[in-house]
Amino acid sequence: MWHDTYLKAVLQPDYTYASEHLLPHLFDALTAHALMLDSVGVEHARDAAQLLRAFRQEPFPPYDPRIEDVFFTLDQNLAAQDSAAAGALRTALSRNDLDMTIYRLSARSRLMRATQRVLTLRRTLLDFAGREIDTVIVAYTHHQPAQPTTLAHYLTAVENNLARDTDRLFGALSRVNLSPMGAVALGGTSFPIDRHATSQLLAFDRPIENTYDAVSASDWQVEVASVITVISTTLSRVLYDLLLWASRGLLILEDGLVQGSSVMPQKRNPVALEHARTKFSKAIGITQSVILSSHNVPFGDINDPGPDIQPPLSSMWHEFREGVELLTASLTNPVVDRVRWLQEAQQGESPVTELADAITRKSGCGFRTAHGQVKHVLEHLRGQVRSVDSLTLEDLQVCGVDLSQAELTSALSPQEFIARRTTLGGPAPSAMREELAGAEARLQADAHQHEAFARHFLQSRAHLEGLTPDASTARTPAADDARP
Amino acid sequence: MWHDTYLKAVLQPDYTYASEHLLPHLFDALTAHALMLDSVGVEHARDAAQLLRAFRQEPFPPYDPRIEDVFFTLDQNLAAQDSAAAGALRTALSRNDLDMTIYRLSARSRLMRATQRVLTLRRTLLDFAGREIDTVIVAYTHHQPAQPTTLAHYLTAVENNLARDTDRLFGALSRVNLSPMGAVALGGTSFPIDRHATSQLLAFDRPIENTYDAVSASDWQVEVASVITVISTTLSRVLYDLLLWASRGLLILEDGLVQGSSVMPQKRNPVALEHARTKFSKAIGITQSVILSSHNVPFGDINDPGPDIQPPLSSMWHEFREGVELLTASLTNPVVDRVRWLQEAQQGESPVTELADAITRKSGCGFRTAHGQVKHVLEHLRGQVRSVDSLTLEDLQVCGVDLSQAELTSALSPQEFIARRTTLGGPAPSAMREELAGAEARLQADAHQHEAFARHFLQSRAHLEGLTPDASTARTPAADDARP
Amino acid sequence: MWHDTYLKAVLQPDYTYASEHLLPHLFDALTAHALMLDSVGVEHARDAAQLLRAFRQEPFPPYDPRIEDVFFTLDQNLAAQDSAAAGALRTALSRNDLDMTIYRLSARSRLMRATQRVLTLRRTLLDFAGREIDTVIVAYTHHQPAQPTTLAHYLTAVENNLARDTDRLFGALSRVNLSPMGAVALGGTSFPIDRHATSQLLAFDRPIENTYDAVSASDWQVEVASVITVISTTLSRVLYDLLLWASRGLLILEDGLVQGSSVMPQKRNPVALEHARTKFSKAIGITQSVILSSHNVPFGDINDPGPDIQPPLSSMWHEFREGVELLTASLTNPVVDRVRWLQEAQQGESPVTELADAITRKSGCGFRTAHGQVKHVLEHLRGQVRSVDSLTLEDLQVCGVDLSQAELTSALSPQEFIARRTTLGGPAPSAMREELAGAEARLQADAHQHEAFARHFLQSRAHLEGLTPDASTARTPAADDARP
Amino acid sequence: MWHDTYLKAVLQPDYTYASEHLLPHLFDALTAHALMLDSVGVEHARDAAQLLRAFRQEPFPPYDPRIEDVFFTLDQNLAAQDSAAAGALRTALSRNDLDMTIYRLSARSRLMRATQRVLTLRRTLLDFAGREIDTVIVAYTHHQPAQPTTLAHYLTAVENNLARDTDRLFGALSRVNLSPMGAVALGGTSFPIDRHATSQLLAFDRPIENTYDAVSASDWQVEVASVITVISTTLSRVLYDLLLWASRGLLILEDGLVQGSSVMPQKRNPVALEHARTKFSKAIGITQSVILSSHNVPFGDINDPGPDIQPPLSSMWHEFREGVELLTASLTNPVVDRVRWLQEAQQGESPVTELADAITRKSGCGFRTAHGQVKHVLEHLRGQVRSVDSLTLEDLQVCGVDLSQAELTSALSPQEFIARRTTLGGPAPSAMREELAGAEARLQADAHQHEAFARHFLQSRAHLEGLTPDASTARTPAADDARP
Repeated sequence: MWHDTYLKAVLQPDYTYASEHLLPHLFDALTAHALMLDSVGVEHARDAAQLLRAFRQEPFPPYDPRIEDVFFTLDQNLAAQDSAAAGALRTALSRNDLDMTIYRLSARSRLMRATQRVLTLRRTLLDFAGREIDTVIVAYTHHQPAQPTTLAHYLTAVENNLARDTDRLFGALSRVNLSPMGAVALGGTSFPIDRHATSQLLAFDRPIENTYDAVSASDWQVEVASVITVISTTLSRVLYDLLLWASRGLLILEDGLVQGSSVMPQKRNPVALEHARTKFSKAIGITQSVILSSHNVPFGDINDPGPDIQPPLSSMWHEFREGVELLTASLTNPVVDRVRWLQEAQQGESPVTELADAITRKSGCGFRTAHGQVKHVLEHLRGQVRSVDSLTLEDLQVCGVDLSQAELTSALSPQEFIARRTTLGGPAPSAMREELAGAEARLQADAHQHEAFARHFLQSRAHLEGLTPDASTARTPAADDARP
Repeated sequence: MWHDTYLKAVLQPDYTYASEHLLPHLFDALTAHALMLDSVGVEHARDAAQLLRAFRQEPFPPYDPRIEDVFFTLDQNLAAQDSAAAGALRTALSRNDLDMTIYRLSARSRLMRATQRVLTLRRTLLDFAGREIDTVIVAYTHHQPAQPTTLAHYLTAVENNLARDTDRLFGALSRVNLSPMGAVALGGTSFPIDRHATSQLLAFDRPIENTYDAVSASDWQVEVASVITVISTTLSRVLYDLLLWASRGLLILEDGLVQGSSVMPQKRNPVALEHARTKFSKAIGITQSVILSSHNVPFGDINDPGPDIQPPLSSMWHEFREGVELLTASLTNPVVDRVRWLQEAQQGESPVTELADAITRKSGCGFRTAHGQVKHVLEHLRGQVRSVDSLTLEDLQVCGVDLSQAELTSALSPQEFIARRTTLGGPAPSAMREELAGAEARLQADAHQHEAFARHFLQSRAHLEGLTPDASTARTPAADDARP
Repeated sequence: MWHDTYLKAVLQPDYTYASEHLLPHLFDALTAHALMLDSVGVEHARDAAQLLRAFRQEPFPPYDPRIEDVFFTLDQNLAAQDSAAAGALRTALSRNDLDMTIYRLSARSRLMRATQRVLTLRRTLLDFAGREIDTVIVAYTHHQPAQPTTLAHYLTAVENNLARDTDRLFGALSRVNLSPMGAVALGGTSFPIDRHATSQLLAFDRPIENTYDAVSASDWQVEVASVITVISTTLSRVLYDLLLWASRGLLILEDGLVQGSSVMPQKRNPVALEHARTKFSKAIGITQSVILSSHNVPFGDINDPGPDIQPPLSSMWHEFREGVELLTASLTNPVVDRVRWLQEAQQGESPVTELADAITRKSGCGFRTAHGQVKHVLEHLRGQVRSVDSLTLEDLQVCGVDLSQAELTSALSPQEFIARRTTLGGPAPSAMREELAGAEARLQADAHQHEAFARHFLQSRAHLEGLTPDASTARTPAADDARP
Repeated sequence: MWHDTYLKAVLQPDYTYASEHLLPHLFDALTAHALMLDSVGVEHARDAAQLLRAFRQEPFPPYDPRIEDVFFTLDQNLAAQDSAAAGALRTALSRNDLDMTIYRLSARSRLMRATQRVLTLRRTLLDFAGREIDTVIVAYTHHQPAQPTTLAHYLTAVENNLARDTDRLFGALSRVNLSPMGAVALGGTSFPIDRHATSQLLAFDRPIENTYDAVSASDWQVEVASVITVISTTLSRVLYDLLLWASRGLLILEDGLVQGSSVMPQKRNPVALEHARTKFSKAIGITQSVILSSHNVPFGDINDPGPDIQPPLSSMWHEFREGVELLTASLTNPVVDRVRWLQEAQQGESPVTELADAITRKSGCGFRTAHGQVKHVLEHLRGQVRSVDSLTLEDLQVCGVDLSQAELTSALSPQEFIARRTTLGGPAPSAMREELAGAEARLQADAHQHEAFARHFLQSRAHLEGLTPDASTARTPAADDARP
């Protein structure tokens, strides 16, 4: 019956994908629909719910080329057992609203798992930062040594970024977690259904109101892909730095995360970080497929942002999660060469901003003038091929600068440079400890929020599976319930 | 001094771009910095603030290849007038935190303008929908006639989508509107500055805490580009439908929005919609540049997501705004051919879902069986090359279906099809009026929220320009202040 | 030994992918290397070649987490049988040059298969066009009816586009089909190997000269992805038109390529075309992953454009091939509603360009004036709500135009409109037949070229498998051998 | 007459863009059309050509909102002077074929300029390589030191890549340089025009045969954008390495290409390289806009890949050219710290591959065994915290390796490592000189080819401007004319 090409390129792979990834959501949606139909008085609907609860315990039938898809496979199996129940289930139901519901339930579950990985990485970053509050590093700007700071300062900056990303993930969740059920083909139905009931049974926040919108909208898909892109770009930047540090031996991964060479006996390649980089590139790349599937196509029920984009979305979540996991593994227990990093800070020119600050404080000449004087001092040193740690009071005087030896020594010390930077959010250990405490509190709150969602979704699942009597009326916990 | 290529490819265009787009934000940021310095006791800082207020009234100097950029141009001009003030201003200030502040202020202003355009389009859609509650159209799925619905139902679906987009825009704003000031190069400073004060003066929500994060993060850029992409994909889908309707004469644009042909005398091309489509394609495309500028680069202060990406971001806002404006103009006053649309609904097969619903209700056989019966009826008709409006009771009986003439007539009437669909969010005029009322309330609340932000930002500007005594302490109105 | 995350996220999926997609290329490359080593006098190398030929007949070992990858699995198995041979094989060999060789061999094979699909689609288009030389359609520009032309004219335009794409595919092949073998890690070797010999054995055009380039370059990957994008964008545009025609019933797919609805009994959705559209969107989207994996990473041997990008590339070829196959299936045997298309041409205004041409010829007033006169005539008709086929000589005279009845009738006939357009490449059946003959000759030549390549690659494979004595010295047939 | 939004968002910016970028191509195309019309006997056509030649010498009129675009501005000006000539010019002419011709002429000119920049960069790379044949560097793989090679080896690898890119540019040119003229709206004309003549006058290779194809195809746009992306990804990878070298002081840019800091007095940022990186990111990003403008739109004359995409294409060429220029400037005269690079090679472990090669040669044990032995030696050294240059014969013997002191010393010498790698395309100075000679010959041939094209296009321009009597019959030089 089906054209062979259509069978191989569309129907069979769709069945395989649905069988492997979507069945629990299919059963959830249909069971909720049946329970709702029962509640508005549709005969046999309760039998349908019971049949569905029984069926989901059994292995799903393998692909049969005579049947279109998993929906009709299930429909025929139900009808074979109880045609009245199967008939009732089809009331006010279309694959249009059903599929969109399944895709949203699937996205909700992937979003929850991705958020979990981000929370774990934040945990790892804060733990790592906690150990490195006194570890001096040289921060680079424009690919040149800039100023001394601490490893904790850098790591906390990354964590703070991911805290904003967590907000984005929760924001996306609030727009994913909406129920299309009851929209039927696109215009609702002439049966007196209760869309709010189905929505609650599935632990959705609420129905998507307009039924045309419910089966047509793809905004939530582009949004989730975009949020993954936002996070992935930031982490690709962090990987740039980590790989640079690894290439210079400042950061050394544990053995289980490095690979050697078939020809170069000395090699210990930090491949976990490299693969993480590509995984983020791939996650970002897949966003493009998602965008294209919603570009210049009708605003209505079509395959492009429907079944066809689900496998790429699945790959996107997969690559992203694995990228975060590789990065988390790499940062859990690496060796940091603190001695070498401190040497770089001491021997290079990175602390000289503080020299200008010191001159400003001492002379009252204004930073603008002091900056010029330090440039002059550095030119003087470079002309004599000398490094900054050889700087003397005479050198300063030659350049018209007047500091005491203690002031000079202090100005050139990376540790004192850092200790002085007690600005809100600065690297001074005192400021850093306060930042970390704040970050810790935010992380706790986000984790708490995530758990509340997870519990709510699991309760809905348990109820639909028939394991608990009644979880349907609980409201999804709003973000502000759990945030301090 | 500068290499000629560097001058032409970087310095000169940067100066031009900054002169045309960034100066008000530069003056705002520096004035707020000066006022903050004064408040923590830095001498001459108040003079710097007054000088800046005076300077911003005057024409900014044209490009001089001996001076690096607008910052140093201003710095030298200030120093020429009052070197103590100019020196004071440089305290605890770097182009790193300053530039990031300026880019965020600029993004905030563009985001506000884009949101305004989205609100206006929502207004236009609701007004249009209000006029078309009874206009029957044939909704298509998979490029085939599906079911009758109303033009109001379709337009409201679009508006509801844009309401979610407005939430995304406000969410992005909350992550853009953070103050990098006081991060200086990356590690804060040894001067006792007050980052909260600068933040409030600039009407930011709060400082970005970690100073390394403050000068490094580009997450907000990728997010704003992504939100524009989310909205643009949806609108590209809507344009597909509008252009299809225009190509069939169902929707006719006003004269000022169509163009003719140099060779085909009959042409009236709906070019405003076509250009809107490309503008959204371009806005989406630019997102890719934004992503690439934050991909695999160091997480730290660099040019890629800094000055170099500002012109593409500016183009993105521009294309997006013009796309929304063209679409708004096209939907403000078009002619709708209601007669032709109704004919399509009456003569085609789109109402037959209701025939199956009617059989289900009458016979109690379940929708599954009724669906099969209607398929049978249609095959019977097609075999005789007859259209659905020729269907008789005899035809139904041949196919084993038993309905009265009144039931048949009603089942095939597009208007009755629609009137019966009173499901929450369905097209029945009664349901539609409720939906529109809800949509109207949401739009009012969003517009109110937008105005509150706008007022707050304008007060900050007025204060920094020296026009009002004190606007610095007001808090940015939180989203929940204004939402009902 | 391996970190569990690394095992699951990298090593195991890499092994699986290599086992399923790359083994024949691995055996080919190693066998060619062994034969080359033997030819330059490396002891035991011939034994290695024989062992490899035996091994490739047997099932490849399943994944063993103690062994890094397929290369070391094979290496250990060889060593277990004959350690001298295994040792010899490792001479002047690295996974760097080996992997790049395998990826190029794989890309070559995918490129050949994709080209085959494009050739088949061209064949289908020319056959279809041959049947529709006299089928009048209305061509649209800017989404409005423009001029009558023939379906053959449209289809041939598409084929001509694909002929250029075939050139692009052959061009890409010439840059893919280069041998990295002998580059070893990156700097060649101190052993006196013969890179030309290995290249010829593998049916490469020649070695990539510079050994650093050989293991580092990813230009060929971005190029193949880009060519797929070029073709996919064109075909997405063609699908726009085909779906529009299908939505209006002008083009009707065969039963095996349409799907119905679970709720709307009348539905016959042209889903094969819709799925083809998404497959092209996905192929284009994957290009982005390929680009990102070569963006801002070191120019040297790394994983990003190495093993990590092979699975996305594989998906890209897959989606593209299936998209072309669905489109080919849809165009092989569709029903064309010629009557309805002709009616549209006769009743609409699309032929009026010819009216202006006729006036120009008759009056000698210049086309500029005639164009204005016809606009006037149309305004006159529209004012009276009349269609163009009601136009009379009186109407023309009122507007100051003087034509005979025969001239008027002829000017408004779509068939005569077309028959007059004998311009090179125009739709007149006489011109069309000439175009088709030329297109046919080009297609034959391209098919011939493709077969010559295929034969050459198969001969190399047979030789390396040990099935033929000597195919190694034949040169890849150059493009000009086969083009007329 | 025009809607204000349409005027501001479309007509006015289109006029501005066309005035600044497209007028010479407009005059060329129209003049060629007029000359062709004259040659087939259209009266007054020669006058039109003369008028156009006169008009192009004068300033083009500024924007007048009453006139649609530059074409009608010119049309009205011609008509005001000589209405018969203006009328004749409109024969067999549409903005459809005219615009596509202008866009192709513009793309041809941009492609030629981009190719010129690529040729100059290749020139710079070969010159630089010529100076660095003996400069030892440590090549990295997977972000770890891998093997010693020379700077010349690396630079030549880059140049070889760009040589393939030059082939791609010429390939794209052959598909851009095709004439749409004579396709008129889409179906040609009933006038007996000569499409070959117009094509030759404009120095196109030939007409695009099918007239529907001529006005519809956008394959060439996606191809040129893709080629720019191919080159830009490669150069982004090279920039990664150059910036890494700059960050370690191994490569130092000249003063005119570095910028300092407003707060860190020591800074000398290699910003020319950083800006080059972003310019390539932006060029790649714009490709996405080009792809999107040809995605899921009708295959026919529309605005998306027409006027609307020209400004982004223009920006793409601009960013790309400036990126190449900044890179070229950076590589023209940088300081290379050869001493430091040699030290890294001598003190690190990068030469130990050769130690395994030496053991293989000496002991005949096979590389597989030798590789294992060297790993053993390195573990022995690392256990004693010793570097490779401290390796003694005793160490080797402990690990069961037998080499003489001379063999050991030689095996660990980076220079001898390199000198031994005389493999085709390897870094040994002897091999390198041969490679450079080959590269030089290829570059000369490509430059020669480029000049031949340039001359041909300039002759056409001169003829159309009326400056030379007859250049129309010359054929575009085929690639093989100029390649050796």
